[in-house]
Amino acid sequence: MAKEPKKLDAIIVGAGLAGLKAARELKAAGKSFKLLEARDRVGGRSKPGEIAGQTVDFGGQWVGPQQKLLLAEAQEMGVETYAQYAEGHSIVDIDGSLKRYKGEIPKLSMFSLLELALVEKRWTKECAALPEGAPWLAARAAEWDAQTLESWILRYVKTKHARTFARVVSRAVFCVEPSQLSYLYFLEYLKQGHGLECLTGVVGGAQQDKFVGGAWQIPSRMANRVEGDIILEAPVHYIVQGEAGVTVVCEKGTFEAERLIMAVPPALAGRITYNQPLPVKRDGLMQRMPMGSVIKIHVVYETPFWREAGLSGMATSNNRAFNVVFDQTAPGSDIGMLVGFIDSLHAVELSGYSEDQRCAGVIADLVHYFGPEAANPIAYAENDWTADEWSRGCYAGTMAPGTLTGYGEALRAPVGRIYWAGTETATEWMGYLDGALQSGIRAAKEVIEAIN
Amino acid sequence: MAKEPKKLDAIIVGAGLAGLKAARELKAAGKSFKLLEARDRVGGRSKPGEIAGQTVDFGGQWVGPQQKLLLAEAQEMGVETYAQYAEGHSIVDIDGSLKRYKGEIPKLSMFSLLELALVEKRWTKECAALPEGAPWLAARAAEWDAQTLESWILRYVKTKHARTFARVVSRAVFCVEPSQLSYLYFLEYLKQGHGLECLTGVVGGAQQDKFVGGAWQIPSRMANRVEGDIILEAPVHYIVQGEAGVTVVCEKGTFEAERLIMAVPPALAGRITYNQPLPVKRDGLMQRMPMGSVIKIHVVYETPFWREAGLSGMATSNNRAFNVVFDQTAPGSDIGMLVGFIDSLHAVELSGYSEDQRCAGVIADLVHYFGPEAANPIAYAENDWTADEWSRGCYAGTMAPGTLTGYGEALRAPVGRIYWAGTETATEWMGYLDGALQSGIRAAKEVIEAIN
Repeated sequence: MAKEPKKLDAIIVGAGLAGLKAARELKAAGKSFKLLEARDRVGGRSKPGEIAGQTVDFGGQWVGPQQKLLLAEAQEMGVETYAQYAEGHSIVDIDGSLKRYKGEIPKLSMFSLLELALVEKRWTKECAALPEGAPWLAARAAEWDAQTLESWILRYVKTKHARTFARVVSRAVFCVEPSQLSYLYFLEYLKQGHGLECLTGVVGGAQQDKFVGGAWQIPSRMANRVEGDIILEAPVHYIVQGEAGVTVVCEKGTFEAERLIMAVPPALAGRITYNQPLPVKRDGLMQRMPMGSVIKIHVVYETPFWREAGLSGMATSNNRAFNVVFDQTAPGSDIGMLVGFIDSLHAVELSGYSEDQRCAGVIADLVHYFGPEAANPIAYAENDWTADEWSRGCYAGTMAPGTLTGYGEALRAPVGRIYWAGTETATEWMGYLDGALQSGIRAAKEVIEAIN
Repeated sequence: MAKEPKKLDAIIVGAGLAGLKAARELKAAGKSFKLLEARDRVGGRSKPGEIAGQTVDFGGQWVGPQQKLLLAEAQEMGVETYAQYAEGHSIVDIDGSLKRYKGEIPKLSMFSLLELALVEKRWTKECAALPEGAPWLAARAAEWDAQTLESWILRYVKTKHARTFARVVSRAVFCVEPSQLSYLYFLEYLKQGHGLECLTGVVGGAQQDKFVGGAWQIPSRMANRVEGDIILEAPVHYIVQGEAGVTVVCEKGTFEAERLIMAVPPALAGRITYNQPLPVKRDGLMQRMPMGSVIKIHVVYETPFWREAGLSGMATSNNRAFNVVFDQTAPGSDIGMLVGFIDSLHAVELSGYSEDQRCAGVIADLVHYFGPEAANPIAYAENDWTADEWSRGCYAGTMAPGTLTGYGEALRAPVGRIYWAGTETATEWMGYLDGALQSGIRAAKEVIEAIN
C-alpha cells in the first residue's frame, strides 16, 4: 500500500526575513513545514551584490540601537556591526544650491529650524495618541487618514525650507511622494520607528550601524538553520483552503499543510489565486498597499576622497534624482565607496532608461555634491527594486489616505488557515528588517497556537 | 505533415463591454481573434439577475442622453430605453432627519444651496482646465493630485450641508470615501461625465433612462455577433510576450496571437503573471487603482406604494448603509420594485455579514425612508460586486492622490504587444458602460493599425 505523503504543519510563502524567522520559530517548536520562495535565493528585500571585488548589500543594510530583534538575530548568526561613517560635514542640495552641515539636521534658516522643532514636537504628541497596533482607533484617526502628508505640510508647515525638508524625508523614508501618503499612516510609521530623529538619524538612529560583510548574511545564515525545508524557485500560483487543510500549488509541486503563513508584501499576496476569494476587507487592503519605488546604487572610487575633504559622504537633495547618499566604504578597505538611492517618482521615471543613462545621471549628481573628483568612478552597480518581479518596489507597501481606517484591521487578521507576516504587518519597525522579524515571530506563534 | 495551428491576429482578455466591443471591431476589420472570459457568462460589470419572476440588472443599468456610444450600441442590438421614474418627491436623510424635495438637489439651507452653486461653478471651471486625455498635464495638476477630495471639501466648502452633499456624491458615484479620492481624479471623472449635474442627475443626466428588459442584454447580444470566438470559464494565468507574438495560458488551453487586448480593470490585470515583468510605471498603476466597493440590492413589494404617496422612490442618506435608492419598477409591471446600493466602507463592512442580516438592515433603512409599508417586501435579491472574484469591486478602479500625475501615462500606453482597454482607460465616461465601449473601439483600432 502506498504511503500517503505526510501533511505538513505549515507552509510558509516567502523566504525573506519574515518567512525565515517564522521557519526558525516553527522548527524550534518541533513543527514540520516547507518554506516556498519564488526567487533562486533567500533574503527577500535583503540581497547581496558584487562591486569592485566586494560583496555589498543591494537591499536593506542598516541597523539602529532600537532594533533589538535584528541585533539579536545578527548576533546569533555571528554577523557583527560597525558604525556608519558620519564624520565631517554632510551636504544638502536645495534647488541646486549646496550647503554643508554637521549632525542630523541641515543648516536651514532660523525660522525653518524653529518650525521644524515645533513640527517634530507635534508629531511626537500625535504619535503618542495612536493605540498600539491599531492606529485606526485613535480619536483623530478619521481626520488624519483623510488627508495626504502633503496636505498636512501645506497646512501646518509655513517656512519654505521646513516644507522642503519634510518632503525630502517622505521620499527618503517611504520612497513615495508626500502626496501619496496618508498622514495617519505617516504618523504610525513614525511612531513605529521611534520618532523622526531616530528614523532618519545616523548616530543613535536607524542608520547608525551596518553589518560587517553585509546584512544579507543574516537571512543567508538563518536559511542554513532550516536548510532542508526551503524550496527555491517555487513561485506560488494557487492556494486552496479546505476543511482538512490548505493546499499550495507552486512551480515545484503541490504541498499540503494545516496552516499557511503568507510572508510576502500585501501587493504581491494579492497576485496569488485563492480558491475562495479572500474577504472583501483583506482583498481591499491588498489592492491598496502599493510598494514604494527605489533603485539602490553603489559607486566606487579609488579612494574615499570626500573623507580627505572633510565630508561625511552624506548628501541629500530636494530635486536631484540620486537624492540620498551615504559613505559605504568597507572597514579596512582602500577603495572608496558611496551608496545611494533614486527614489519615488524619480525611480519610476528612470527605471525605463538604460543603466548607462542612469549611471551618467548619478555621476553628474555626485559631481554636483562632491566636486570633480566624483567624475571618475572605477565601478558602478545598481539594483532596481521596483522592476524586481518578486518585490515590485521597496522599501515596503505604503498607504494612501483611507486605507488604514478602512482596511487596517485586515493587516494581521487570519483568513481561515492563512496567517499574515511581512514587515508591513509589524507593530514596531514596520518597513524595516526588524519589523519583518517581529512579524515572523508573531505569525509563527499564531500558527503554533492554532495547531496545538 | 501536421498543420501548425494558425496564429490569431489578437487575443482579448475579458468579455465585458470593452472586450466585446473590441471583438466586434476586430471582426468587422476581418481579423481573427479569441475572446477569453474568466466567468461562465459575458457582460463583466453588466449582469442579469432574477427577482420575483423578472430579470433585472444586477450590474450597470442606466444610460444618459450624452452616452452616445451606449445608445448606439443598444439601438444596434435592438434594446430599447425607458425613462427612470422620477415623479413626485424624493427623500434625503441627513443624520436621521428626513426631508422631501423635487428635482435634482435636496432641500438644503439657502446658504448651503448658494455655496453648492459656487462649488459647482468652480468645478466646471477646473474641469475645463484639464487637457483632453491627459489631466496630469494640467497647470495645477500637481496641486490637485496632492490632496484628497475630503481635504478639498474641508478647505473650500464651509456650510455643513453642502459638505454632506459633496460626501454623499462621492460615495454614490465612486463607491469610495472622499478621503480615498484624489481631487484631480475626481475632477477628471467629473469632466468625463459632463459635470456634476449630468453625472448625478436623472432627467437630462446619466440616470435618465434604463433599458427595457435590462442593460445586460446589450453585451449578451453583442456576444451573439462574435459567438464562435468567445471562450468562457477561461481565467488567464500567464502571458508570454515573445518576438514572434504573444502566448496566453488560460484554463481552457494555450493561445497564440500577434497582439493582446487586456480588457479587465487594472487591479485585476495586475493579478495575471507576465513572463516579462511589466514596466515599472504600468505595474505601479496596477498597484494603485483599487476598485470601489458596492453591493447592489433589489427589493420587491406588491405595489409601488411610494408612487401613490407622491414619492419618486428616490432616497439618499449620509449615514445609513442602504444610501442610494431608486424606483426600479418595470414598465407595465404590477409589482413595485426598488433598487439601491450599499457602497464604500458600508459595503466593505457588511460584506462579511449574512444575506439575512443585510436584508434586515436594508428593510429598516427603507422603512425609515418610506414608512411602515416598506416593512413587508415580497422579494429581496443582492449582488455583492466587491466579493466577486472577477471584479473585486465596482463601479470601477479609483485613484488616490499621486496616482494620475505619477502613473496616469501608463493607462493606455501599450506594453510591447499588450494593449489596454476597460472603462478605466476611457477619455469620456470613464467608469461607465459608455466608457467601456469607447475603450474597446480605441484598443481595437490600435491593434488593427499595428497588424496592418
